[in-house]
Amino acid sequence: MAQNARLQGLGMLVLFVLLSPAMTTAQQPSLNLMPLPANAQAGTGSLGVDSSFSVTFTGHTEPRLERAGERFLRQLARQTGLPLSLTPAKNAKATLVIQTDHASKEIQEAGEDESYVLEVTTAGARLTATTSLGTMHGLQTFLQLVDVSPGGFAAPALKIQDQPRFRWRGLMIDTARHFIPLDVIRRNIDGMEAVKMNVFHWHLSENQGFRAESKKFPKLHELGSDALYYTQDEIRDLIAYARDRGIRVVPEFDMPGHSTAWFVGHPELASGKGPYEIERRWGIFDPAMDPTNEKVYKFLDDLIGEMAKLFPDHYFHIGGDEVNGKEWDANAKIQAFMKAHGLKNNEALQAYFSGRVQKLVTKHGKTVVGWDEVLVEGVPKDIVIQSWRGQASLAKAAKQGYRGILSNGYYLDLGWSAARHYAVDPMSGDAANLSPEEKQRILGGESCMWAEYVNPENVDSRIWPRNAAIAERLWSSQEVRDSASMYARLDFVSARLEWLGLTHKTASRHMLQRLAGSASPVEFAALRTLTDVIEPVKDYTREQTAPAVPTSATPMNRVVDAIPLESDAGRRFGELVDQFLTSACHDPALEARLRAQLTIWRDNDAILQPLSQRSFLVREVAASSQDLSALGSAGLAALDAIGKGQTVPDSWKAQQLAILEQVKKPKAQLLLIPAPAVQKLAEAAAAGGACSNPKP
Amino acid sequence: MAQNARLQGLGMLVLFVLLSPAMTTAQQPSLNLMPLPANAQAGTGSLGVDSSFSVTFTGHTEPRLERAGERFLRQLARQTGLPLSLTPAKNAKATLVIQTDHASKEIQEAGEDESYVLEVTTAGARLTATTSLGTMHGLQTFLQLVDVSPGGFAAPALKIQDQPRFRWRGLMIDTARHFIPLDVIRRNIDGMEAVKMNVFHWHLSENQGFRAESKKFPKLHELGSDALYYTQDEIRDLIAYARDRGIRVVPEFDMPGHSTAWFVGHPELASGKGPYEIERRWGIFDPAMDPTNEKVYKFLDDLIGEMAKLFPDHYFHIGGDEVNGKEWDANAKIQAFMKAHGLKNNEALQAYFSGRVQKLVTKHGKTVVGWDEVLVEGVPKDIVIQSWRGQASLAKAAKQGYRGILSNGYYLDLGWSAARHYAVDPMSGDAANLSPEEKQRILGGESCMWAEYVNPENVDSRIWPRNAAIAERLWSSQEVRDSASMYARLDFVSARLEWLGLTHKTASRHMLQRLAGSASPVEFAALRTLTDVIEPVKDYTREQTAPAVPTSATPMNRVVDAIPLESDAGRRFGELVDQFLTSACHDPALEARLRAQLTIWRDNDAILQPLSQRSFLVREVAASSQDLSALGSAGLAALDAIGKGQTVPDSWKAQQLAILEQVKKPKAQLLLIPAPAVQKLAEAAAAGGACSNPKP
Repeated sequence: MAQNARLQGLGMLVLFVLLSPAMTTAQQPSLNLMPLPANAQAGTGSLGVDSSFSVTFTGHTEPRLERAGERFLRQLARQTGLPLSLTPAKNAKATLVIQTDHASKEIQEAGEDESYVLEVTTAGARLTATTSLGTMHGLQTFLQLVDVSPGGFAAPALKIQDQPRFRWRGLMIDTARHFIPLDVIRRNIDGMEAVKMNVFHWHLSENQGFRAESKKFPKLHELGSDALYYTQDEIRDLIAYARDRGIRVVPEFDMPGHSTAWFVGHPELASGKGPYEIERRWGIFDPAMDPTNEKVYKFLDDLIGEMAKLFPDHYFHIGGDEVNGKEWDANAKIQAFMKAHGLKNNEALQAYFSGRVQKLVTKHGKTVVGWDEVLVEGVPKDIVIQSWRGQASLAKAAKQGYRGILSNGYYLDLGWSAARHYAVDPMSGDAANLSPEEKQRILGGESCMWAEYVNPENVDSRIWPRNAAIAERLWSSQEVRDSASMYARLDFVSARLEWLGLTHKTASRHMLQRLAGSASPVEFAALRTLTDVIEPVKDYTREQTAPAVPTSATPMNRVVDAIPLESDAGRRFGELVDQFLTSACHDPALEARLRAQLTIWRDNDAILQPLSQRSFLVREVAASSQDLSALGSAGLAALDAIGKGQTVPDSWKAQQLAILEQVKKPKAQLLLIPAPAVQKLAEAAAAGGACSNPKP
Repeated sequence: MAQNARLQGLGMLVLFVLLSPAMTTAQQPSLNLMPLPANAQAGTGSLGVDSSFSVTFTGHTEPRLERAGERFLRQLARQTGLPLSLTPAKNAKATLVIQTDHASKEIQEAGEDESYVLEVTTAGARLTATTSLGTMHGLQTFLQLVDVSPGGFAAPALKIQDQPRFRWRGLMIDTARHFIPLDVIRRNIDGMEAVKMNVFHWHLSENQGFRAESKKFPKLHELGSDALYYTQDEIRDLIAYARDRGIRVVPEFDMPGHSTAWFVGHPELASGKGPYEIERRWGIFDPAMDPTNEKVYKFLDDLIGEMAKLFPDHYFHIGGDEVNGKEWDANAKIQAFMKAHGLKNNEALQAYFSGRVQKLVTKHGKTVVGWDEVLVEGVPKDIVIQSWRGQASLAKAAKQGYRGILSNGYYLDLGWSAARHYAVDPMSGDAANLSPEEKQRILGGESCMWAEYVNPENVDSRIWPRNAAIAERLWSSQEVRDSASMYARLDFVSARLEWLGLTHKTASRHMLQRLAGSASPVEFAALRTLTDVIEPVKDYTREQTAPAVPTSATPMNRVVDAIPLESDAGRRFGELVDQFLTSACHDPALEARLRAQLTIWRDNDAILQPLSQRSFLVREVAASSQDLSALGSAGLAALDAIGKGQTVPDSWKAQQLAILEQVKKPKAQLLLIPAPAVQKLAEAAAAGGACSNPKP
């Protein structure tokens, strides 16, 4: 019947086929928990959650736990719509009884006991934890357990014994390339709490901005931030906010490179002549601190001293990455210094600098964290290496006695799928062969949200929901790695994360509405049909294919900025094609679903064209829209050929594959995600008898 | 092809047909403005809006205008995604030059000059206004004009001369039955600014709560609010916030009825014996102030004096509605007083009370506003009547020399369509026959958001977008009344209102996700298919059909609480059926679109059933889901019959109409909106040759 519907100007038919994941009941996880707990034993029945639900704290109490209790009740009220009393009960007859043995450390440490036991029966629930940290994690687990049921809201009866696999489970947000306001950081910290991450790594300085107020050197933020910085009071508030959620805050002041913004107010720190301006472009730039200048160390001593007081965490990140050395090469005084001190090359010069800075950090009572580059011969063993280069360098560091954190594989800005991040394990690769003692040195990992193409409007959608998969990787057993289960739970968690105020789903729709302007509902639906199956190009391709040099002033209002980094609909279509090709390739139901989707795609461009003539931002995806149409036609042709069950001519195959090659090329920095799946269909058609099962 | 797709357990096909409105190009408004301006002349070309866009203020300036300028730029940045400088320019070369002649009144008055002239050319824009109020309105118009275009963001060249039709364009929010937090009020005030409303009527006291802090009588809010009240500082802040947006704040303290919450702390004011508790149910209750007790007037003198200082507006609302008189009847002292003073009945007693209170309000420098009931013989002419009873009583008041505001027809809680509210005009009905002088007494109107079934989560969706249609009614010419044009512009405005922080669209989806729990994407889509075409029952039917006595503690997490009060998809389907039946009833394209939609509806229940077995909140709409399925089948049968072009047997007609009668009955307090349209199809089928145009 949809085939009868002809496109008739504005009054045309739009079909939205929402493809269900190719998932059997067996694959459906019984618990919508993310991260999955270490141990869970199912019980019988469930605990009803109604308006009388209450919580009580026993054992150790502290104001932070009371606030966690109120936050828990507020969130439970939100996710059920029940009018709950937000005050923890004073008696022991509460629905959920919490026993905390003792306080966690005054300054949260990596490796504290975060375990908890949660027991739910039809009569009530009991959460026990050694420390407040475990209690907070257990509350988040309980929130995820409560769901609508046939008889009301309920949590399933079970017993969970849980603790993290890694002690360091972080998210880094680059707030320097684009400034990210505090309310946006706070809601992301709420998201971290929900998935049990425990380190917020705050990337505070860059070529493009120095974002922390310094009272000792006010020119740093006054001249280096375009007035977009965090005051010390705001920083203290944020640290308290994070501590309330069991999350440490590790500041990063990147040096000696990535530091142009420092030099706007303090050119005397630099190796070049200056003057310097805040950098507006992206990339690796020449300016670097002068490692040969004693005044630099005096300055850093004062600044690190100030910041070490402001940030209570025991760790202090000094960056250390990506120094191109050009300013050093060009400075005769530096060259002379190197010769005099036997520093053979820039790497040695940076090692000298790192060593000096490391002593300053130690003097102020902190442990250094730095990117791969800080690990050079002779660096003290107590520093922590954050590996952006890969698992091999992490393993190498561990072998040498250094502790490490994995970030390679967890760069959220590269646009990888959740499954691809999920497959990266700190203990895989070279790390798998480490001795138990060496393995102990791998503290965990951190996802990294670098902010070249991220602003307050779309940052949530660049972090979530994929970050939840990384959080699970760092919390749950190494054996937990079924990506189908992960995706099913991720869908669920993703919706709930929006209830915390995160906007990863909402903002995308608002941004698409902006670029659709006064589109009709039909046109907007067609735009959604297209944008549901495209993704931004991966890795660093966006920079490499940019039509003009992107800067921090480039508007981020394009389709590539608005759409999620991973297409759910594209993934589901791929699953459906696999299901069709492997299990029952002539199953009429599966074929009908494929045909329905392909028909919509084929016809979508005609609907979208008038809009792309009215909107310059939609016009940018006109080629992708035509590609989607071609993809639909190619897929339908392949299904026709498969249906005939005969070998198709080689010319047909060549023609179809040529179309698909064209479709697979990125356009407007966008990829059409279903292209490989349609190619599978075309190849199956070309192969003639590709079906593994015979026609019924 | 969709017909080939069989439902196969979980792996079934879901089709989403988004029906476009039956709208020709001629009906498309050329300007997406709401409210429409008094005069607009199209120019040639458009003014590009890019990152260099700037604003400058000339003539009168004040901090409020500077804030309005920054807010304007912030909003423009949000709706374009352009990184604009948020500081108004100091030179006269800005893109938008604003000339304000002089300040508006220190305390905003009803009837001040709100006019403005906005001229846009390809070279720049100029906004001129007599007062700051006109300037603020003009800025909102400019924001609505800017849209995406083929060459970038742009505003069309034109000249607008605009002023409001009515001086009093209000929104009342009942914050007493359910407490509404300040951030929610603020975002609704932002929405009011966007559609040029100028009065926020703050309903602050009720049987269910006394929401304003009184320093003179702290027991009022301490005992009468469940600790949910606004402090005086918060109230002052909100008044300043509204004033910044050209909006007056009129407080209402409802008396002598609707006042149980006062009596919890002050039983001595009541006519009954007490003690009193905060009322938890909805309706009209017996407690009322004792009009015969001089201490009541002493108390009110003090309280009105306190509140008159807190609220600077010249008007003060004393409620006065719905006194049932039972406490008066039962009180011998009151009865004796009435006899002694010749007060024949309770109406006379209330008139005596109103007269006394009116004197107190006057003494404190304010003008009384009251609901219809305060208008009784002998009341001074300077009071303002807010008519909830109807246009007739408004006209009657005007004839008697009283000024009035229309609210009858603008009760947002009754669930009427935007078109139905839009059709209500303060100058229609009896008012149409008033003399020009009498017409002058009709100041305008107010929409009313009564809050029995409204909470912070869903209140936005109960106010918006329909309130924008009422705002247009009160601003634009009486001749502006084409509801197709209104709906097209409302769609546009509705999307933009969410950019102000309103959640009328977003919250509904979140609430549906809550009641869908861990539904699969396919199941959730099926829930959306159903909920897109149902509406809560209208008027006061919800109370009359409630399964249990609703109270302020009743959860509002049901489908009836989550869905919008007006179904866009239902309206569009009705338009499509009308188009099909009147213009080209055998047009295959229209028939195909109807069939596609009806097929989806027919098949939807099978998809939704598993979910309704898992969720008690979805199960509540199981009957509506079955009805939708029946509706789909009935519609398809009707189309089949129409297609044959022959007269159908009477038995067929009776059978179909019986099904439709069943479907039209409300279930779970919900109405299936497309039912009447399908009935039209069935009747056309039964009539045989109902098509006005012959088969081509």
